[in-house]
Amino acid sequence: MRVDVIANVDNIRSEDFIQKSAVVIDVLRATSTMITALANGARGLLPVETVPEAQSKRSEHTFVGGERYYKKIPGFQAGNSPHDYMSEEIAGKLVILTTSNGTRGILKSQRASRVLAASFLNGTACGSALVSFDRDVILLCAGCRNDFSLEDGLCAGMIIDAMESILDQPLRLNDLGMAMKLAYNQCRHNLYETVMECSSAKQLVKLGFAHDVEYCTGVDTVPVVPAAKHDLVLTPLNLIGTAGR
Amino acid sequence: MRVDVIANVDNIRSEDFIQKSAVVIDVLRATSTMITALANGARGLLPVETVPEAQSKRSEHTFVGGERYYKKIPGFQAGNSPHDYMSEEIAGKLVILTTSNGTRGILKSQRASRVLAASFLNGTACGSALVSFDRDVILLCAGCRNDFSLEDGLCAGMIIDAMESILDQPLRLNDLGMAMKLAYNQCRHNLYETVMECSSAKQLVKLGFAHDVEYCTGVDTVPVVPAAKHDLVLTPLNLIGTAGR
Repeated sequence: MRVDVIANVDNIRSEDFIQKSAVVIDVLRATSTMITALANGARGLLPVETVPEAQSKRSEHTFVGGERYYKKIPGFQAGNSPHDYMSEEIAGKLVILTTSNGTRGILKSQRASRVLAASFLNGTACGSALVSFDRDVILLCAGCRNDFSLEDGLCAGMIIDAMESILDQPLRLNDLGMAMKLAYNQCRHNLYETVMECSSAKQLVKLGFAHDVEYCTGVDTVPVVPAAKHDLVLTPLNLIGTAGR
Repeated sequence: MRVDVIANVDNIRSEDFIQKSAVVIDVLRATSTMITALANGARGLLPVETVPEAQSKRSEHTFVGGERYYKKIPGFQAGNSPHDYMSEEIAGKLVILTTSNGTRGILKSQRASRVLAASFLNGTACGSALVSFDRDVILLCAGCRNDFSLEDGLCAGMIIDAMESILDQPLRLNDLGMAMKLAYNQCRHNLYETVMECSSAKQLVKLGFAHDVEYCTGVDTVPVVPAAKHDLVLTPLNLIGTAGR
């Protein structure tokens, strides 16, 4: 199996995903939020690109959330903090989410045979699902405004590490994948302290979201894998019985 | 001091270099070759973009070398192997060099207050020079055909590590800089084995240049720093007395 890590959404074309498993990683905070929403009973997640598009989907069956520049969009039911998606209010609802980069990553990877959303919260569960799919993998780091974000890269390293542990052999990696595996292994025992030095984390702390950084660096604390298959709606992957699919 | 690591030449604009020290890193093999040429008595290095431009500079005072797709250009005196620049033939000559990415990086960074060429061969000497210049730094990884190359990233990590050791305090780093520092520290004791897994190294081994990979992973073996200051010609930096300049 080959695993390529891509530094940001603009570094890849839609057609590069064909016949592969795609994983979108936006640790702070879009994919951590998606995982949290499904773990709290949302029936699905629909990522959309624009604010008007999100607004147009509002109904009694939906819960509309999102951010621009880390802040909640006026009139939306929630921002992009995972803590906004822990209430009973979202149970059974379709969550409509628009964020700066994370949702763009999911929309870009629609031509993959399967799209997963990953963060530290579900890293090992994702690695396990990817091994069971038995296809080449693209780990797409969402990044921040066209820049690489370290926390996303470290999560890619964590997923590679989990996959290699399960397979008990090294994967074929691109150069960025090798770099992220090395970087993750160097800081895996002080992940929170390392992520706190990243530019997104510093920005979130400044805006009063330090508790989000703490929550989002919890490793394997929410083993739910949001997944879509030739469809825009992500639902929880059934982790039992994914082999061979 | 702030140090930003940039993944490849296309990820930065010329004006981003203004008032900064720029370091171009193309471990396999352009900057390793430049260092080697100056250490063997070349009086300077002129990077040029095109093959005809290089050819037009040919004279009794020059030594014309370069590669495309790892191979020597027909009619040139040398390719891009550092081993081609170790003979007495180059002493006192101006080396004209055109390579796929390394020379592009140097041309791109012309607006920096100083441009250095770095590789593992001179990493600590480069770090020391950068500290003495006391300006913000851009470490530009040349990469390969728009892709990130791990060996260049690890060399950036090595330079950051050297600078922090000299300053005895952490630098302000961008997220990619933090990642490269972590990755370098994870593999610094088996650098050769790690670089041998990179895509450029594999390609070079396939083409019969395994000895180049071995030579280019020699840490601090050639403490000569090619440098240019508002000029296209790189000459050896005088490592004594760079403080405050």
